[in-house]
Formats: sequence, structure tokens, C-alpha cells
Amino acid sequence: MPESSAPPVFDAAFQARLHDLFVWRRDVRRFRTDPVPDGALERLIAEACIGPSVGLSQPWRFVIVDDPARRAAIIDNFQAANREALDSYSGERRASYARLKLAGLQEAPSQFAVFVDETTAVGHGLGRRTMPEMLRYSAVAAICQLWLAARAEGVGMGWVSILDPDRVRRDLEVPADWSLIGYFCLGYPADPSDAPELVREGWERRRSAEELILRR
Amino acid sequence: MPESSAPPVFDAAFQARLHDLFVWRRDVRRFRTDPVPDGALERLIAEACIGPSVGLSQPWRFVIVDDPARRAAIIDNFQAANREALDSYSGERRASYARLKLAGLQEAPSQFAVFVDETTAVGHGLGRRTMPEMLRYSAVAAICQLWLAARAEGVGMGWVSILDPDRVRRDLEVPADWSLIGYFCLGYPADPSDAPELVREGWERRRSAEELILRR
Repeated sequence: MPESSAPPVFDAAFQARLHDLFVWRRDVRRFRTDPVPDGALERLIAEACIGPSVGLSQPWRFVIVDDPARRAAIIDNFQAANREALDSYSGERRASYARLKLAGLQEAPSQFAVFVDETTAVGHGLGRRTMPEMLRYSAVAAICQLWLAARAEGVGMGWVSILDPDRVRRDLEVPADWSLIGYFCLGYPADPSDAPELVREGWERRRSAEELILRR
Repeated sequence: MPESSAPPVFDAAFQARLHDLFVWRRDVRRFRTDPVPDGALERLIAEACIGPSVGLSQPWRFVIVDDPARRAAIIDNFQAANREALDSYSGERRASYARLKLAGLQEAPSQFAVFVDETTAVGHGLGRRTMPEMLRYSAVAAICQLWLAARAEGVGMGWVSILDPDRVRRDLEVPADWSLIGYFCLGYPADPSDAPELVREGWERRRSAEELILRR
């Protein structure tokens, strides 16, 4: 086994810049249509794949979706789920929901789905006996790493969850024992911002950390 | 609403350093016992709380655990779950499992649990109608942000999932409709490394990204 090199020191300037990255990472729904550079998505997926996973199981499966018919099926799926969601609101909240743009599926030049292989033997079951959901959480961790790496390159990502997950699985023809974690749009953001779109649109406000901490 | 400032540009040097951060972020199980600075955990939780959440629901609840009796209950929980896990292996794999150190609960100076409030009305249900698990995924995203921010300060984190989650909920006296996402150890790593401990111990190997990508 090769020796590890000396641990790097991440200085205060880097720490401050990392904070900026967190602040400017957004769930992007408005994309420019110009493509990201060739190989950029694959490189970002490689950054995801060095993320943490339970038992080093790496249960994530990245499905890059380029086929226009499959993309159209995802749009159709989203529109149906979004219509049902709209119908679950009434009054002012319904009008507010109707004004939101919740996915960039029409414009985003790169798109991919992430699944978890629930049956993987990799990792030999370590760390997921009492909490089997750790496999899915591992995939989320990988996605978050991709999200930050993308933003550091000026590329935005949007997480689409307004979908029937079983239908996504069928439309992308992946194994039946894979669970959908999310469908993702990737591209240059049309309006980079340091504020969540749901705040800008008045849907919700940010809570401070103090409201979310308990002590025991 | 205040005007957003101009989007920052994250240069190639920052991108490379961010990659180093991903490489040196580890699931730490061996901690020094000296405490992290006063207020460091609260500051890191604040970094977590600007992470992405479905519908801006911020469903995460951070429970900082300092009480010795509660910490002892967590250790007891871990030991019972770990014994059962050991008994699920046999032969060489069992011997290998027995050699692993899987949690730093005895040494880590800071410890906290993260739960999700499954009943939160914040976010008005947006984005989690067809995929209610998005609430839990949001908490995972917050945790990953904390993990990276910690490592950038030289602080390591370990994610403990070898626990009976219902017992953690009871032992920490949190509401019954909160779901445990994980229990976390935080402190200075005794042996910073760029390789996962499970690789160093021969439990599992890393897969390359190419093995984990499909195209549709």
C-alpha cells in the first residue's frame, strides 16, 4: 500500500471560500442551453464517487440520460406529478405554487438519474444492518459532492423530485431492485444567486441554525 | 429584498483544493480527546443549515449530546448492535470484522445526533409528494456540508449507523415522529489519511466511476 502523503492544511482563505461555495450552491431551475464541456459530467461523477459510502459500498448508479425520447418521458412524468401536486393546494398557496418554475428539464443540457442498487454485496453489509437506509444516504452524499464540485466550476444543478419514481425506473430501463434517489439537471445557471429561489419567490423563509439545535 | 452580490468565480486553484478536501474527508473512528474550540460545533451546524432542503423545509434537527449518561447509553446501543453484526459474519470475514474499529464514541470530544422531523409543515410539502424520503435526504445533504466544513478546519467526523435507531430516539428523548438519520462523532483525527480506513484494513476496495455509470 502506498504511503499517504502529508495531510494538507486548508487555510482560512479556503475555509471562507468554501463557505461562499455553500452560499452560492443553488437548486437551479433556470439553465442556459449551451452545453457543459465534453467530459465535464463524467469528471463530476468521479468527484461524487470519492464521497462517503456505508461500508465503502458505493451503491450509487449514475444513469446519464441523452436520448430525446427518454428525456421526453421524464418531462411527461414531471408534468403529471406537478399537476397532481398543484391540485393538492388551494387558494393563495395554489396560485403561488402555479407561479413557481420547479425544474429545468426543457433547457438543461446535461441530465442524469441516480439510483441505488439495493442488492449490492459490495461493503459486505457493514454499517447497514440496523439502518439499511444508509445505502440511499450514501448516494445522497455522493450527489452533494457532485453538486458542490459543479458549482465550483460555475455549473449549476437542480434536483428534481416531483416524479413518479417507479415510472422513472421503467422509462430508463434499469433493474427493478434499483431505487431512484433523484433526477438531476445540469448546466450553466441563467441567474446565479446567493438566495434560494423559494425565498426569492416568497414560498418559504430560511430558519436560523439556533432554531434547529437541541441539547441533551 | 437585498440585491444579490455579483457571483463569485471559483478559480482552478480552489477547484483543486476542493478536490483535496474530498480526498482527505474521511469517516473518522480514531479521535484525539482534546476538544474542538468553543462554538466550533455550533458554527459547523450553521454551515449545515445553509445546505439544500426540499421545499426549503430544513427538516434537520441537530441534537448535541454532552450528558455522560446519554453518551453511555449510545455506547451501550452501539455495542449491542455491533455484537449482532459480528454474529452475522463467519470465518475469515468475521475475524476481519472483529478487527475493525467502527466508532470513536469513547474518545470523540463532540457528539451529536441528527433527526428529521417527519411532520414538519415548513416547505408546505413542496417536492415531497411522490418522494417523501426527500425530507431525510435533505438532512443527509446538510450533514455532508458539515462534514466538509469540519475537515477544512482540520476536524474529523465519523458517522455511526451501527445503532438501534428507535433506542437512540428514546435515549435522547426526542419526539416520536422524528427519524434518526445518524449519530456523529467529531474531533481532531488521530491519524489523518487520504485513504478510507476500510481500504487500509482490507475490508473493501474502491470502484472507479466508470464502473458506476450507465447511459440511456
